[in-house]
Amino acid sequence: METLQTIINHRTIRKYQTTKIEPEILDQILKAGTCASTTGNMQVYCIIVSSDEKIKEDLWAAHFKQDMVKQAPLVLTFCADFNRFNIWCKLRNANAGYDNFLSFYTASIDALLVAQNVAIAAESFGLGICYLGTTTYMADSIIKILDLPENVVPVTTLVIGYPSEIPDLTDRLPLNGVVHYEKYKNYSSEQINRIYSEKEGLLSTKELIEINKTENLAQIFTDKRYSKKDNINFSKSYLKVIENQGFMNNEL
Amino acid sequence: METLQTIINHRTIRKYQTTKIEPEILDQILKAGTCASTTGNMQVYCIIVSSDEKIKEDLWAAHFKQDMVKQAPLVLTFCADFNRFNIWCKLRNANAGYDNFLSFYTASIDALLVAQNVAIAAESFGLGICYLGTTTYMADSIIKILDLPENVVPVTTLVIGYPSEIPDLTDRLPLNGVVHYEKYKNYSSEQINRIYSEKEGLLSTKELIEINKTENLAQIFTDKRYSKKDNINFSKSYLKVIENQGFMNNEL
Repeated sequence: METLQTIINHRTIRKYQTTKIEPEILDQILKAGTCASTTGNMQVYCIIVSSDEKIKEDLWAAHFKQDMVKQAPLVLTFCADFNRFNIWCKLRNANAGYDNFLSFYTASIDALLVAQNVAIAAESFGLGICYLGTTTYMADSIIKILDLPENVVPVTTLVIGYPSEIPDLTDRLPLNGVVHYEKYKNYSSEQINRIYSEKEGLLSTKELIEINKTENLAQIFTDKRYSKKDNINFSKSYLKVIENQGFMNNEL
Repeated sequence: METLQTIINHRTIRKYQTTKIEPEILDQILKAGTCASTTGNMQVYCIIVSSDEKIKEDLWAAHFKQDMVKQAPLVLTFCADFNRFNIWCKLRNANAGYDNFLSFYTASIDALLVAQNVAIAAESFGLGICYLGTTTYMADSIIKILDLPENVVPVTTLVIGYPSEIPDLTDRLPLNGVVHYEKYKNYSSEQINRIYSEKEGLLSTKELIEINKTENLAQIFTDKRYSKKDNINFSKSYLKVIENQGFMNNEL
């Protein structure tokens, strides 16, 4: 049951020791990444492993200057990548048709399953991880920093290092808040209240509401953290990146 | 190192025993799913667990009639889901702005990290899994079969059951085929040839080329499995689904 324990004990780590990760351990973690299922075993993803201080500083600036990006020894950027596959097809006189949204999305799925394998493998070595949602917001800057060519789009980022904190486990909604049996059953107001009651009752939630000066937890998400205005702006910029990187030709 | 072994021993299972999965085991697997990181801990995903023979038959038809969908006792459909979150926001007088592409993509990331947790947890119990790439192709049909409401889009599917085969491990590209250090380094023809040489030299590859009557492996992908025409059609239909489900409003 070690595997299940590793998964259940996951917590996001935001404070890291400066200790470097041993190259043999990094290699095993990356190899574990490649064991994930990918569409047709095409492996249309790549992982950029950055440890150089200058590159990490540029990535830190792109990722909203979150300290852990500079602090953790490794920043792993996971990308949807049809570049390598397309070059191979061209060399083999095969007519690649992967310049469209479906191909981008397929490659995103590959990259994300690999990322989660890497996260779990890293945690099994006692390392801490943190996903950076800012990857999609700032994809354009990340492309420049990491020299990503056409047909490569950053999807998510993991910072990895030995933790210098062990935070409590984060709350999760009860299983019936995210699982449906057989078909989707839509929610009554009572059901929603019940699903969110534990989360809304937490002391940490009350503290958050006080700090953010909102009426409740939901308003922290809508007004402070993930506002409509930001979402619309980031939608536009990410769609533009997908197009610029060559994934929006939807004509034969 | 049990965790690493579980990850490394992953193989896609296409033949299943009819043995049902014990409810206590399923519960542990689903709970392991919920332990994945999600954006801002919003958990904007859902899992539809289908075991009913009629529903599985409908899903089987949607998933290109792949036998394992009927054979395996469980079909798990992972969806990007802002429906529950939006209802909660409305009940709390919070102005949700999640009707855009960024929100869809964010919710997709949540769904995929959860799916991979579920896959690994299932494998740690000796169960076999298979991802169904047909989920994005046939999203429209799956929405109807599973009664998915607005703001819910199917992203991937896992079939799960006790395996009745133990296939060989699938080949993977060498690590330098998918990993870059510091920044992306584009490939020379020689490098591509080297990266693909082991894969192209496999006996199974030679057999595949014979069966498919192509000149090489790359042409099996471009001409038989993932053709430009299919990709364009599925791009259009998936983008339409994303729009119909309420995720393409990119105006304030």
